Amino acid sequence: MSKPAAGPLVPHVVVVGAGFAGLQAARALAGEAVRITVVDRRNHHLFQPLLYQVATAALDPSDIAFPIRAVFRGQRNVQQVLMAAVEDVDLEHRSLKLDDGSDLAFDKLILATGATHSYFGHDDWREHAPGLKTVEDALDIRSRVLGAFEAAERHPETAAEQLTFVVVGAGPTGVELAGALVEIARFALSKDYDRIDPSHARVLLVEHADRVLPPYPEELSASARRQLESLGVEVRTSNAVAAVDGGGVALADGTRVPSRTVLWAAGVQASPLAKALGVELDRSGRVPVAADLSVPGHADVFVVGDLAAAKSADTGRSVPGVAPAAMQGGRHAARQIVRDLQGRPREPFRYRDKGSLATIGWARAVADFGRFRFGGFPAWAAWMLIHVAFLIGVRNRLFVLLSWAWSYLTFRRGARLITGPSAAGRVAAAGREAAAARPAVTAGPRA
Amino acid sequence: MSKPAAGPLVPHVVVVGAGFAGLQAARALAGEAVRITVVDRRNHHLFQPLLYQVATAALDPSDIAFPIRAVFRGQRNVQQVLMAAVEDVDLEHRSLKLDDGSDLAFDKLILATGATHSYFGHDDWREHAPGLKTVEDALDIRSRVLGAFEAAERHPETAAEQLTFVVVGAGPTGVELAGALVEIARFALSKDYDRIDPSHARVLLVEHADRVLPPYPEELSASARRQLESLGVEVRTSNAVAAVDGGGVALADGTRVPSRTVLWAAGVQASPLAKALGVELDRSGRVPVAADLSVPGHADVFVVGDLAAAKSADTGRSVPGVAPAAMQGGRHAARQIVRDLQGRPREPFRYRDKGSLATIGWARAVADFGRFRFGGFPAWAAWMLIHVAFLIGVRNRLFVLLSWAWSYLTFRRGARLITGPSAAGRVAAAGREAAAARPAVTAGPRA
Repeated sequence: MSKPAAGPLVPHVVVVGAGFAGLQAARALAGEAVRITVVDRRNHHLFQPLLYQVATAALDPSDIAFPIRAVFRGQRNVQQVLMAAVEDVDLEHRSLKLDDGSDLAFDKLILATGATHSYFGHDDWREHAPGLKTVEDALDIRSRVLGAFEAAERHPETAAEQLTFVVVGAGPTGVELAGALVEIARFALSKDYDRIDPSHARVLLVEHADRVLPPYPEELSASARRQLESLGVEVRTSNAVAAVDGGGVALADGTRVPSRTVLWAAGVQASPLAKALGVELDRSGRVPVAADLSVPGHADVFVVGDLAAAKSADTGRSVPGVAPAAMQGGRHAARQIVRDLQGRPREPFRYRDKGSLATIGWARAVADFGRFRFGGFPAWAAWMLIHVAFLIGVRNRLFVLLSWAWSYLTFRRGARLITGPSAAGRVAAAGREAAAARPAVTAGPRA
Repeated sequence: MSKPAAGPLVPHVVVVGAGFAGLQAARALAGEAVRITVVDRRNHHLFQPLLYQVATAALDPSDIAFPIRAVFRGQRNVQQVLMAAVEDVDLEHRSLKLDDGSDLAFDKLILATGATHSYFGHDDWREHAPGLKTVEDALDIRSRVLGAFEAAERHPETAAEQLTFVVVGAGPTGVELAGALVEIARFALSKDYDRIDPSHARVLLVEHADRVLPPYPEELSASARRQLESLGVEVRTSNAVAAVDGGGVALADGTRVPSRTVLWAAGVQASPLAKALGVELDRSGRVPVAADLSVPGHADVFVVGDLAAAKSADTGRSVPGVAPAAMQGGRHAARQIVRDLQGRPREPFRYRDKGSLATIGWARAVADFGRFRFGGFPAWAAWMLIHVAFLIGVRNRLFVLLSWAWSYLTFRRGARLITGPSAAGRVAAAGREAAAARPAVTAGPRA
């Protein structure tokens, strides 16, 4: 209403997906002679690197989310923010099909709908081993984890399997989840139960590669492993999950691990929208893009972030699926659109590796800034600073800092809520199973 | 684990429900020669008076919830906290049946499972007009409200019905919801949309009685109405809802109000557990209790809080279903158990009316402290102080105060997340319906 429309003759840029890549693309076009529409299934941008802290009861969803409309409130050439899913792309007619059946025409398109985890063809494992990509995922995992302690308290004879947590995949998310799970059990919950000892909980971290954080330099992988093990995580590298069901996992080495809480942090599976482009995709379903990040043969369509299989023009190496790479890709696509407007030639994308960080727990982390590689407290301090700096919104930064300060001072977690329609039912079901297995057990207090 | 068990010979007190009544009952027994089991379907105590602020995107669920285990961490005679639903009560054998099929024996029982809203026999209205009792309710309402603005932006021709909000019932919750809805539309969202003007949203507050806040003194009802109307709420007293469906409500006076968001804050329906007691219930399904709050004929079973139909011994008047009354009732039941142990006679319950407060919005409220009745800013300040003081947990108090300070300074709301499996689908469905009704409309920007 309040924004005067740019002339109808300027090109219409549609950005699909307001993750790191899409958000940066639309922001980088601020002030340019384009009119922009941002489309996202959600009303909020989500800071996924901290989502594991929502799953482990340290933060609230709204601490790490920010309304997309509010991001673009001050950007005059963003004419529309639409909460909608894109169901199809018509490259020939330059039009998108939205989930309400309407069409949305574009002159330039930036697709940034991201990726999720891959179950390597075993989609039936998803039910027993949820991944961590959305707010709902995080709240589901939080309820499962806290619910496992509740179920164990009600039926202590099930404590061994209720308090065994298996994290599949030792990338940054898996490492962070495993570390946080141990900390919950050891510190946040340790004094709250009467019939079980939460600190006896086991956390297994299973990784197919021969080390944790496989994309990182070897010395950091070794440091991360030492820090995980000193915290009490059982690290199982060069191993994999052969089967997952409601009772636990079977590992490739033949071990069976009874567990009621299996969390999935492995594999990459690009958003299904990639298929709509009609080009051949890579094994993970990602779109192989040209050097300028456009779709080969469709110069006005860019694919950025985790949806793209891109190579850096200088090194020829694959661009990793991390937030800094997504932000750089988004800005690059925006710059190419500006160059088109100016009649200048396109540039190839060069990924600048600014370093890697992963945190393992309180004062435990690893950092790789090229020449500087370090672990422990300094890496953890760097991790905190950088993550708070990249959060969107002053309120989010303030509340995340305060939540962390609170947790670190009190060893408590501020968001210990079991919610969701299935949470209470799961605790009761676990109890019913236990009761069926051992009908003599009663729930009366052990006086 | 860490708590040495009290002797097996002390009576076992089971408290069912950790709302205001149950929590106060268990706390009031601290240090007494009893062993206590607290049973609740949830793992958290919920501060319901602020739940409407979660529904209207001002607060996060964890700001107003506190883990029940953490409440009782330091109380040595609380031997167990069980996350379980009670399915039946066997008064003769003094035993409860839990939802996992196990039994829980008691010597003394305090039932405090509360009440929910009543649809007056029209339970099919619930789907279209959700009530506000749980965290899930609040998040559902938040997603519906924010989703209505998104749907209107996508299809401005539907804005009239998308941006009409109907609140049924003008008790404190209804009044607070109606005021907050206007404030969201007028302030928090006013600059974020391009094709609609959120400040044109209509909020109707429908009440069967002839005034808002019917249990309050008349002059405060009049003050509340003036404040609501000055904020822009359309107050419809002496009216009622005759029908609710997906397209809106039909009022008793014959008016039909097209609306996509109807919120229910009317009626009282006691928890179904009351039926398990085998005594005659009142019209709202509550348990008529004796003067000491026990169940007539079952002196060892107390019913407190919203589950009870109690009369104050001094005035003979019904005890209202408000938080202070529930807390007093819980403490009274605990005192009677202590008197039993001491061989002293029971006392009748006397409700002490400490006054009433309801807030309407920023600097708008009404207060009734007997001799002192006032509205506007002083009432609002009193409301804030008292609500923060009664929150459980230092972190909750701190974060609520900070969230309020943030909202009041910036006119923004910190928790503008649309979540839940159905949220995005609802926006798309609204769009599909609109598109079906008017196939010529496209979603392209109006350049």
